[in-house]
Amino acid sequence: MTRPGSRSGTTMNDVAAAAGVSQATVSLVLNDAAGTRFSDETRRRVHAAANELGYRTNAHAKVLRDGVAGMIGFVGDFVATAPFAGKIIEGAQARAWEAGLLLLTVNTGGDKALEAASLETMLSYKVAGVVYAARYHRVLDVPDVLAEVPAVVLNSRDRSGRFPSIAPQEELGGYTATKRLVDAGHRRIAMINIGAVDGELPAAVGRHAGYLRALKEAGLDADPLLHKIGDGHESGGFDNALALMTGPQPPTAIFCANDRTAWGSYQALAQLGLSIPRDVSLVGFDNQETLAPHLRPGLTTLELPFLEMGRRAIELLLAGAERDGSTECFECPLVERHSVAAPPKTTISP
Amino acid sequence: MTRPGSRSGTTMNDVAAAAGVSQATVSLVLNDAAGTRFSDETRRRVHAAANELGYRTNAHAKVLRDGVAGMIGFVGDFVATAPFAGKIIEGAQARAWEAGLLLLTVNTGGDKALEAASLETMLSYKVAGVVYAARYHRVLDVPDVLAEVPAVVLNSRDRSGRFPSIAPQEELGGYTATKRLVDAGHRRIAMINIGAVDGELPAAVGRHAGYLRALKEAGLDADPLLHKIGDGHESGGFDNALALMTGPQPPTAIFCANDRTAWGSYQALAQLGLSIPRDVSLVGFDNQETLAPHLRPGLTTLELPFLEMGRRAIELLLAGAERDGSTECFECPLVERHSVAAPPKTTISP
Repeated sequence: MTRPGSRSGTTMNDVAAAAGVSQATVSLVLNDAAGTRFSDETRRRVHAAANELGYRTNAHAKVLRDGVAGMIGFVGDFVATAPFAGKIIEGAQARAWEAGLLLLTVNTGGDKALEAASLETMLSYKVAGVVYAARYHRVLDVPDVLAEVPAVVLNSRDRSGRFPSIAPQEELGGYTATKRLVDAGHRRIAMINIGAVDGELPAAVGRHAGYLRALKEAGLDADPLLHKIGDGHESGGFDNALALMTGPQPPTAIFCANDRTAWGSYQALAQLGLSIPRDVSLVGFDNQETLAPHLRPGLTTLELPFLEMGRRAIELLLAGAERDGSTECFECPLVERHSVAAPPKTTISP
Repeated sequence: MTRPGSRSGTTMNDVAAAAGVSQATVSLVLNDAAGTRFSDETRRRVHAAANELGYRTNAHAKVLRDGVAGMIGFVGDFVATAPFAGKIIEGAQARAWEAGLLLLTVNTGGDKALEAASLETMLSYKVAGVVYAARYHRVLDVPDVLAEVPAVVLNSRDRSGRFPSIAPQEELGGYTATKRLVDAGHRRIAMINIGAVDGELPAAVGRHAGYLRALKEAGLDADPLLHKIGDGHESGGFDNALALMTGPQPPTAIFCANDRTAWGSYQALAQLGLSIPRDVSLVGFDNQETLAPHLRPGLTTLELPFLEMGRRAIELLLAGAERDGSTECFECPLVERHSVAAPPKTTISP
């Protein structure tokens, strides 16, 4: 492995050549010049080339010279230990480090004394700001002490409306998932939700609203019997898919409001001897990297853009995190795999 | 949600009553008295009761009074973003917080400049020590700068033999997994490994050695055709299970050297119309909480005790992390579910 500094002869021109951009672009990207805008793709290429070649940015050189980096606090409920939310931390940390800052991550597990001590400690260490993150998208109460620093609420919304928030576009995601099934020719489309639609879980409420909008737009009536409430776990998908497919008028397609629910549905369909997508089509939500590509067939699903959301939280902080109570919503793109096909011809049309 | 301090009237006696232990036990456990030893179960009950009742330990009271907690550095390669290693951080953080310390976690992603800056920063902030953790158990080169503080290598071993290490008992795990299949009556037992046995991956080498020992002890010859090298991913399990079961003398049982390999094997067996455990028995390794209990049938597997390993790393640090190059190996207990049964009667004995 290369030790830092072993290739300090690398110049900005070397990075520009490797990234296929101009030296000016490298300079602006690496030094985070305010007011300049490059595509994520360009910025990633530049940073990848800089890392690859061992090029030190001004921020990194300063850190290594001073022997101390500034810090950004990152407080989450369970975010560091949830099996898929690591991407949020990965994105936030990468972006912070591009600016020469470290992420001081604390996972409170819901322990309010630990949370209070963590925040006090972060303020004592003069963090540049604090990201307050949640495992699930919800409306939450942000501790008052955060008013003392730039702060961003990540993967949730601030109930008080003081802090800027970053969240996924749940309704559009539900719409996109359902429309994919409509476009494939399905008319009886079920949804297995991850929570009640009269609750405080924007993911459950929003994805269901999008499901209804796509059905309506296609001139389809929403059959309440086809909307099931799971629990976001594999077993909730299994039980509800079993109930749907053994009911009086089974659907030809199911929108599962997360990938774990879809996984349970796969297992239920296998048990019934039904084939995906020949007999039933499925769309998931989350694009969990450890799950969705490894199902057979691979699961067509919506991506929760956690990497980008984590990066963006840091960018908002670096820009001062103006206290306008705004929510920046990230689109969840469709990731096409192999779980959607046209409905079987033998199905009785409703 | 309870705000810190809202129930500060809670006494040590309240905690003792809730935990079902004496007040002296509560005092010794919460104040981390040196030289006293309680079972993990007792310590967990006490801490759970203290959290539940909002009782503040001396360490927590001091932190909240001073407004700043001490820190322990936690540097990992990908540990914070690996989908299952969160338990290591959870254990380490919980144990640190019991002593009134926060965990400053940095995930380097293999970036040596970030690692160097993180360690320098941690030293500048006068951390009480540093845990140097790896996603996979391997032999690694520990940065020299760690000689300046108490340091522990977690889920790996220090090549230089300077620092104490914490690792799983791989050989015993492989033996236990295989013996479970031997005891169920199997004679043709395959192993799908997660790496080569002449490589630097102690998990692959050790688990295979344990597999051989269990076979030998049962008077069984190890058929080299039954040892397959996968890649630790689902597809490695799928391809190798398919090859094994369609080969000339298929096994009646497979020891999969991790749970993701077992998952792939499940999918291959389903494709072949074979039932688990009626036709083939399986044992995994890791007990990934998001995977093993959700397979159908539930996967019998070995648990990687990450929570305990994380806790233990902090305990070693708090005790000074004597620089004796010792490795503390944690036993991986068998977690019994439903993927093992007697071999089918129709199988031809070798």
